[in-house]
Amino acid sequence: MKKIRIVVDAMGGDLAPLNDVAGAIIAAEEKPSTLEIILCGDENKIEEEMRRHKVRLGNIEIVHAPESVTMEDSPTESLRSKPNSSLSVGLKLVREKNAEAFVSAGNTGAVMTAATLKLGRLEGVGRPTIGSQFPTDRGTTMVFDVGASVDCKAQHLLEFATMGSIYMKNIYSIESPRVALLSVGEEKTKGDNLTLEAHELLSASALNFTGNVEGRDILNGKADIVVCDGFVGNVILKFAESVLELLKSKFRNYASQGFFKKLWVGMMYGTLKNVILKDFDYQEYGGVPLLGVNGVVIIGHGKSSPIAIKNMIYKAEEMVVKDVNGKISRELERKENVN
Amino acid sequence: MKKIRIVVDAMGGDLAPLNDVAGAIIAAEEKPSTLEIILCGDENKIEEEMRRHKVRLGNIEIVHAPESVTMEDSPTESLRSKPNSSLSVGLKLVREKNAEAFVSAGNTGAVMTAATLKLGRLEGVGRPTIGSQFPTDRGTTMVFDVGASVDCKAQHLLEFATMGSIYMKNIYSIESPRVALLSVGEEKTKGDNLTLEAHELLSASALNFTGNVEGRDILNGKADIVVCDGFVGNVILKFAESVLELLKSKFRNYASQGFFKKLWVGMMYGTLKNVILKDFDYQEYGGVPLLGVNGVVIIGHGKSSPIAIKNMIYKAEEMVVKDVNGKISRELERKENVN
Repeated sequence: MKKIRIVVDAMGGDLAPLNDVAGAIIAAEEKPSTLEIILCGDENKIEEEMRRHKVRLGNIEIVHAPESVTMEDSPTESLRSKPNSSLSVGLKLVREKNAEAFVSAGNTGAVMTAATLKLGRLEGVGRPTIGSQFPTDRGTTMVFDVGASVDCKAQHLLEFATMGSIYMKNIYSIESPRVALLSVGEEKTKGDNLTLEAHELLSASALNFTGNVEGRDILNGKADIVVCDGFVGNVILKFAESVLELLKSKFRNYASQGFFKKLWVGMMYGTLKNVILKDFDYQEYGGVPLLGVNGVVIIGHGKSSPIAIKNMIYKAEEMVVKDVNGKISRELERKENVN
Repeated sequence: MKKIRIVVDAMGGDLAPLNDVAGAIIAAEEKPSTLEIILCGDENKIEEEMRRHKVRLGNIEIVHAPESVTMEDSPTESLRSKPNSSLSVGLKLVREKNAEAFVSAGNTGAVMTAATLKLGRLEGVGRPTIGSQFPTDRGTTMVFDVGASVDCKAQHLLEFATMGSIYMKNIYSIESPRVALLSVGEEKTKGDNLTLEAHELLSASALNFTGNVEGRDILNGKADIVVCDGFVGNVILKFAESVLELLKSKFRNYASQGFFKKLWVGMMYGTLKNVILKDFDYQEYGGVPLLGVNGVVIIGHGKSSPIAIKNMIYKAEEMVVKDVNGKISRELERKENVN
């Protein structure tokens, strides 16, 4: 069997190349017969990290890229000013079929922009989209788009729903994912111009569309997929991440009020971590997919741990094995032909 | 000194008229010389509640309204089909200057629609807006609009910012409230068409505009006021409320896993309530203002406790005393004349 070749952006994320290399090593060690990892980035730094781990793995290759895009770089600007970044070089490997997938814990906007430009869009896709998992009582709900794809048309929301459905069916084994439209009321007459129009398109589609949901329904598992304009999705995702920060800081403040309070928070910590923090901790999920580009791309949080990087690699592998992009492409092409 | 007359919608909220009457009684008892409360709703039910409390207060009056708008009623439909609702009758008292303010824990959409139609808009206001408080590390941030005022124009966002600034200056004693624009990036070039345009209007205004903020900044106290389209604000508000529900349900699940876990959650409960739940518990705030209509209107959560109702009455009183609407009106009229 041919191994699946996955590029890991070794310069992506706040702790690059530390966690990227560590995660790649775990994946390469766990799946020596199916995976081949290409670490793309500053050769010297990557080799230094590899030496620290004292491993020699036949299925890890290094491809040198002298530049790296930082978290602060402007997505479009960095693409032009840093042509030899790990991002550009790594995506080129995918475009030229030297690898099947690309994973990065780097600057989300830059990965999205670079991937869209370098790999191009899949046939029938107007706009690529990033989906993000939200924890619910019953499992996971994915919101599309959270990648700041703003001023969407209703047609884009329909595409997000279609791509999201294929992704969830294949990756989460949900036979007919329930798709909902995010709005300000459950009735189909509630919403702004975009949602009113999208409601009609979604209703007329072959998707398992269950109607409108409100902001409160994202975390209650009413739907497997919630679609919205990328402005709204991005604001909610960032708001959700900040809830965890606020909770942590509230506990820190409480603990700082005295010895016994500190002791008490320490005693509660394990439970709090298990009950609350775990599900809200976005790195646990191991990356989110960028759907609609001509190649498998997984984007992770800047703070991704080695385990998160490993999970991102496995998610990319699964997307390749299950041919998610091929299925998206066939579905959207078919629709184009119908129209 | 003339007493301030405040109408309390006795039929508003999930437990009406129970909490509405109880809250009105607390306010009337605490401020016998400055407040006069008009309980508007089903006379028999209100009197029955009053009897249960065994109080006779000279500053509580009952105005009969035989119908009541439920939480499920459609805002526009109910206005037409229930002309004698506590909402319509109560607002009429304000319109005809028989009272200075109206507070309700009823159907938010219905209160907003009815108030806008019955009281009319203040001079210079294109759209009324509802603001909601969010807890931050440093205090409170108010988001305008959360009242589902969708498909806003940039001019509306500027109005929200102006009204919000006057409200916060007067009610929260913040001399020059920091106004931020919600977007998907901090740079002024980031956002959708609406935010790009609103950024320019806000920059050119005399407001203390501090630029764009992201979803994560709502809870970190970077700004006193965050403005956005009512679609986004409404989705975030409802999402935020649901976080509390998810946390509660997670703790319940954990507690149900066995005797010792139950005991342990019970032991932690007091701290959790103080550290987390309190700030996220929206009823604590005692209502949010509907700004831009020609009268003081405070809207509360359907689950408002008697204390929350009392706080709503006091907030309404403060808005009357500080002449917030007069100040809004003069500020927006002045702008209209400049244009």
